[in-house]
Amino acid sequence: MAGSGFGRIFRITTWGESHGPALGVVIDGCPAGLTLCEEDIQVFLDRRKPGASPLSTPRSEADKVKILSGVFEGVTTGAPISLMVENTSQRSSDYGEMKDTYRPGHADYCYDAKYGIRDYRGGGRSSGRETIGRVAAGAIASKILSELGISVEAYTSSIGPVKIREGIYSREQVLSCPTAMPDAEADREATEYVKKMAAEKNSVGGTMECVIRHMPAGVGDPVFDKLDALLASAVMSIGAVKAVEIGDGTAVSTLTGRENNDPFTTENGKVTKTTNHSGGILGGISDGTDILVRASVKPTPSIFSPQETVNKNGDSVTLTIAGRHDPVIIPRAVVVMEAMCAITVLDALLVNQSARLQYLKDFYN
Amino acid sequence: MAGSGFGRIFRITTWGESHGPALGVVIDGCPAGLTLCEEDIQVFLDRRKPGASPLSTPRSEADKVKILSGVFEGVTTGAPISLMVENTSQRSSDYGEMKDTYRPGHADYCYDAKYGIRDYRGGGRSSGRETIGRVAAGAIASKILSELGISVEAYTSSIGPVKIREGIYSREQVLSCPTAMPDAEADREATEYVKKMAAEKNSVGGTMECVIRHMPAGVGDPVFDKLDALLASAVMSIGAVKAVEIGDGTAVSTLTGRENNDPFTTENGKVTKTTNHSGGILGGISDGTDILVRASVKPTPSIFSPQETVNKNGDSVTLTIAGRHDPVIIPRAVVVMEAMCAITVLDALLVNQSARLQYLKDFYN
Amino acid sequence: MAGSGFGRIFRITTWGESHGPALGVVIDGCPAGLTLCEEDIQVFLDRRKPGASPLSTPRSEADKVKILSGVFEGVTTGAPISLMVENTSQRSSDYGEMKDTYRPGHADYCYDAKYGIRDYRGGGRSSGRETIGRVAAGAIASKILSELGISVEAYTSSIGPVKIREGIYSREQVLSCPTAMPDAEADREATEYVKKMAAEKNSVGGTMECVIRHMPAGVGDPVFDKLDALLASAVMSIGAVKAVEIGDGTAVSTLTGRENNDPFTTENGKVTKTTNHSGGILGGISDGTDILVRASVKPTPSIFSPQETVNKNGDSVTLTIAGRHDPVIIPRAVVVMEAMCAITVLDALLVNQSARLQYLKDFYN
Amino acid sequence: MAGSGFGRIFRITTWGESHGPALGVVIDGCPAGLTLCEEDIQVFLDRRKPGASPLSTPRSEADKVKILSGVFEGVTTGAPISLMVENTSQRSSDYGEMKDTYRPGHADYCYDAKYGIRDYRGGGRSSGRETIGRVAAGAIASKILSELGISVEAYTSSIGPVKIREGIYSREQVLSCPTAMPDAEADREATEYVKKMAAEKNSVGGTMECVIRHMPAGVGDPVFDKLDALLASAVMSIGAVKAVEIGDGTAVSTLTGRENNDPFTTENGKVTKTTNHSGGILGGISDGTDILVRASVKPTPSIFSPQETVNKNGDSVTLTIAGRHDPVIIPRAVVVMEAMCAITVLDALLVNQSARLQYLKDFYN
Repeated sequence: MAGSGFGRIFRITTWGESHGPALGVVIDGCPAGLTLCEEDIQVFLDRRKPGASPLSTPRSEADKVKILSGVFEGVTTGAPISLMVENTSQRSSDYGEMKDTYRPGHADYCYDAKYGIRDYRGGGRSSGRETIGRVAAGAIASKILSELGISVEAYTSSIGPVKIREGIYSREQVLSCPTAMPDAEADREATEYVKKMAAEKNSVGGTMECVIRHMPAGVGDPVFDKLDALLASAVMSIGAVKAVEIGDGTAVSTLTGRENNDPFTTENGKVTKTTNHSGGILGGISDGTDILVRASVKPTPSIFSPQETVNKNGDSVTLTIAGRHDPVIIPRAVVVMEAMCAITVLDALLVNQSARLQYLKDFYN
Repeated sequence: MAGSGFGRIFRITTWGESHGPALGVVIDGCPAGLTLCEEDIQVFLDRRKPGASPLSTPRSEADKVKILSGVFEGVTTGAPISLMVENTSQRSSDYGEMKDTYRPGHADYCYDAKYGIRDYRGGGRSSGRETIGRVAAGAIASKILSELGISVEAYTSSIGPVKIREGIYSREQVLSCPTAMPDAEADREATEYVKKMAAEKNSVGGTMECVIRHMPAGVGDPVFDKLDALLASAVMSIGAVKAVEIGDGTAVSTLTGRENNDPFTTENGKVTKTTNHSGGILGGISDGTDILVRASVKPTPSIFSPQETVNKNGDSVTLTIAGRHDPVIIPRAVVVMEAMCAITVLDALLVNQSARLQYLKDFYN
Repeated sequence: MAGSGFGRIFRITTWGESHGPALGVVIDGCPAGLTLCEEDIQVFLDRRKPGASPLSTPRSEADKVKILSGVFEGVTTGAPISLMVENTSQRSSDYGEMKDTYRPGHADYCYDAKYGIRDYRGGGRSSGRETIGRVAAGAIASKILSELGISVEAYTSSIGPVKIREGIYSREQVLSCPTAMPDAEADREATEYVKKMAAEKNSVGGTMECVIRHMPAGVGDPVFDKLDALLASAVMSIGAVKAVEIGDGTAVSTLTGRENNDPFTTENGKVTKTTNHSGGILGGISDGTDILVRASVKPTPSIFSPQETVNKNGDSVTLTIAGRHDPVIIPRAVVVMEAMCAITVLDALLVNQSARLQYLKDFYN
Repeated sequence: MAGSGFGRIFRITTWGESHGPALGVVIDGCPAGLTLCEEDIQVFLDRRKPGASPLSTPRSEADKVKILSGVFEGVTTGAPISLMVENTSQRSSDYGEMKDTYRPGHADYCYDAKYGIRDYRGGGRSSGRETIGRVAAGAIASKILSELGISVEAYTSSIGPVKIREGIYSREQVLSCPTAMPDAEADREATEYVKKMAAEKNSVGGTMECVIRHMPAGVGDPVFDKLDALLASAVMSIGAVKAVEIGDGTAVSTLTGRENNDPFTTENGKVTKTTNHSGGILGGISDGTDILVRASVKPTPSIFSPQETVNKNGDSVTLTIAGRHDPVIIPRAVVVMEAMCAITVLDALLVNQSARLQYLKDFYN
């Protein structure tokens, strides 16, 4: 219960530190019968891999995943799936002088306050590399969802002041450009902005969004396990995320009921809505329209300009961070958000099979 | 696992429908030795009670709480605490004609899609009355926190376009005015705004904030049970909340690292920060400064002007809602937010006692 | 997490003390669509009600159950079901002088050691009345199972030296006789034995068994959530149970592999076994044959002869227990065992719907 | 939730198949500050390693454990501890012809019924090798317990008809002899018995016991998380265990209250008992005396004599098992029982820190 587990039926447990021998995840509760190979997972991991773009850290990790259990002759068996990625490019020497200094914007001080001991190399457990396990598990969740016809796609929606234009969307663009924006023009502009700030030894924040399409209505649970509550938790748990919005999000606070209510209608005999301010969820349960989640991500706390802080003894020190750090977190966080949303939605779909007695009867009779 | 439970050690399970005989909550895991009486809980429930202000529904429920278990001679025993509030002012007749019609902005359609059956009277389980159990449990959590010197205070920060002024804060004002705003001037302005919109058979949204003061550093768990992730889930699970922010929230997306990083310093020999953009949490763990959570709440979906929608058969219908509904949700939701934050923080404090071997040794030796 | 919750999807939380105002249970995760009324539950509660036989305590409680939520127009809605039974026959005066004395065989000392406070009236939370919530929830689980064609039947298999004869089984006998034995002759003999021991101010133990018939093969989960592991936990959690056996149970320790292995065969095209030493479970998963669970129950610790013990201050005292206590626990524990087995099996059936990708595809496509 | 997780605060998740690349465990919630190296774990694994005695399978695995995370400079950090053991001696060819045949006494048929697919090599996930993760995690739990002064020791108490003599106990004997019996004479006799049965291509069952000494009073939770209920689940979840007893176990069924009640007394100012029929637990909570757990283990189902069974198509076949199998399970299961008991007790100790408000106050003030 130290917090490294997520999910109810599709349950993942991640492990590993930035500069330990390896990182990984165990997925317990993956349904049997899914065709799965390492390449299915690798394509997701490659999206968060460092060194892939001019905006990302030059630390160059192969991040090759190994399937250690739960798959037999290329098919999942229902047994826990253990996935591992070995660390190969640790440069712990970068961190030696920082072991007693609390980096602003980082969790160093909090880990010391909590545990009294801290693996200071590369942030240890609080490193962005912790997300490798999430992304690997998310690749599997996404594959299952795609077999059900459900797509989960995340992308960068803004970096600093640069926003993507409404209505411009290309998945290929997201998967291939440095910013993970779906809009080539915004990508170019944002790239320039990031490079400029990086040159000033500064860093920038941004927003990312995830759209879940073809979701069946009726998924999610009332009260505390509302689908939006679980998505909020899933996305807020990604390091550097400081806000999560569903549908119109913060904008609802200045809307009126007449503006914000989405009228129901029918389309091809199916209930749907003429607008989607609610972001596909009402009362915590999917309404069958697209689910939209938005996250605000803070600027990379590791900046290369000198900063005032204290060390373990409480002495004031001026810190100049070395090491390898992205000037913007968003582009590589997009696949993490996609993974967390996929895991959350799949888990809700699995739980939902128990909602009605008739489902049980159909299943067992 | 149908979603009515929350918390790991301080675990609550709520139950009850708007128009059933009663609503309540069972709290399992409340530490033994707390002095507790019904009045401790009643003061919290009275803050969410309908009929208390010109902005709230005229449904007038006494909402008197009974302690059914877990307290002996005025002290908690460690056994589950069962709390119950009887419903006394149901007017189901208001809802009869709506049983087959899906109200826009409500969960009616989603419940039907999920369960195939729905208690349509007053929204059933998806009613705002569901929060009675949360508030009752939150009263207990708050009392424990206050014994630890930790305060949890929520308030309305905006209604429609009316925002509270920075630096104006009076807890008495929050607890006594119709809007639950800490700023008397904003309260008057917002009250006028709400009345005007209500007269137009419309409704309005707003924002609310919760501040947790005197929080020890080191509380919260890494990765998925980050304190901010759990707070996000707790607050997003409140009906009508569409966004949750921690600290600077959405504003971080346009900040730079130099602006957003909070420098560490020491004060009276204790590590603290000179600014608090992070909202008291770094890496999911409390840093010892004030925790700030913000929620955006949508306008009440039940408006009295006619709306286009469909019924169970998919026929288009024009719906005019009857019944008793607040034109703004926020003022009565504030105490719900406070309750959810208190429960979340207390639970994290309880879990945290297991973080170090030395704690175990101190405890058992 | 103080231990009053059980189950993963069909999740129950019980509450209440022997001499508090009421006891009850909240069931979260009951599938929607089950026809349910109070009488369905009452027939189970009446089986554990005191005062119903010459072997049971003269405390005469009506133990009438009320459904407070989760049922609408006679059908479950998927919302949590809250059930309550009011205490009406408390005689706390019986316990006043024992509040500082630790009764042998009871949990008094342990509760004091754990919580530092104890509701001493009638055992408080550790009273046999705690099982009211279990039995009420078990009635619902049993009703669902019966709709799936699965029966769960418990009975007394021995009291002191008196054992039921093999092959004699009448459910009517179990439900109507004082001992809950399926064998009328053994019932008479055991009744005499209990009366004799009661006359000597002594008490007796026994064994009870539960058979689950028409269980589908493939239910239960590997490793830690094995069906037999969960049944063991469910049954051992009943006060006074000191051993749980599956199938041949303790007898396997002196069998050889050739004797103990059950040969597989086919019957009407279905795989089955020619013997059932395993008690219907292999590797923690049901094999489609009858599941057999056996429990050993200690003699009632409350005996009326004087006993040596200590009080809170550690002084030696001689205790003579007053109050109303059965000379044998088994007959009224049988329905508790039946309830716990039903809940456990239903929960495993619900979880099992997620075992294969194909099930998900069939469900959502 | 597919069942490979155990524990509430000290939470383990095991993974791996008999003939996959590796097996392992992730421990989330291990307190920070424990000195830990691979050798601490290896000594436990060596006790269950095959090939170490004349009674065990000649499959010779090195079973060398690697710590992949959660330990920094030889000390646990509070981060999840990932442990891995690589499989090196797989001989899948032994199993090829059995892939469609259901071995009596094994879980083959049940896995097929549940998942529709099965890793048939060496039993896959249902292999005894699954316990490697349990033993590795148990080594850590045991080390923590020993720092608290609590010992957990398991041993073989009978094999077939051969029982250990009362009062003869040597831990060294347990750790060094082929049967893991604490009694050298019984060890010799049992060894002869096993060899004889093995020569007859048969196998034998037995019993094992675990004693937990120096346990503080007041640990364990009421109702469903009773310490005995959790121990029952923990031990019954070990493959081949068919019965779990606490204290006098099945014997209580023929005892009277006067015989079975343990009188309380005081010793050095501490409450204790003059006898221990209850096995150290009353009402699910430790009473400060030794905890005794007993398990009955069935004979190895893999015997080398021909057996009648069916294949996947339901055809009757005669099966003669090849491969490497112990003629008795107990001696290598003893360390697994010890591990499971250690994990269960440690977890209960961790949970117990939250029992009283005063504990929280002492901790945070």
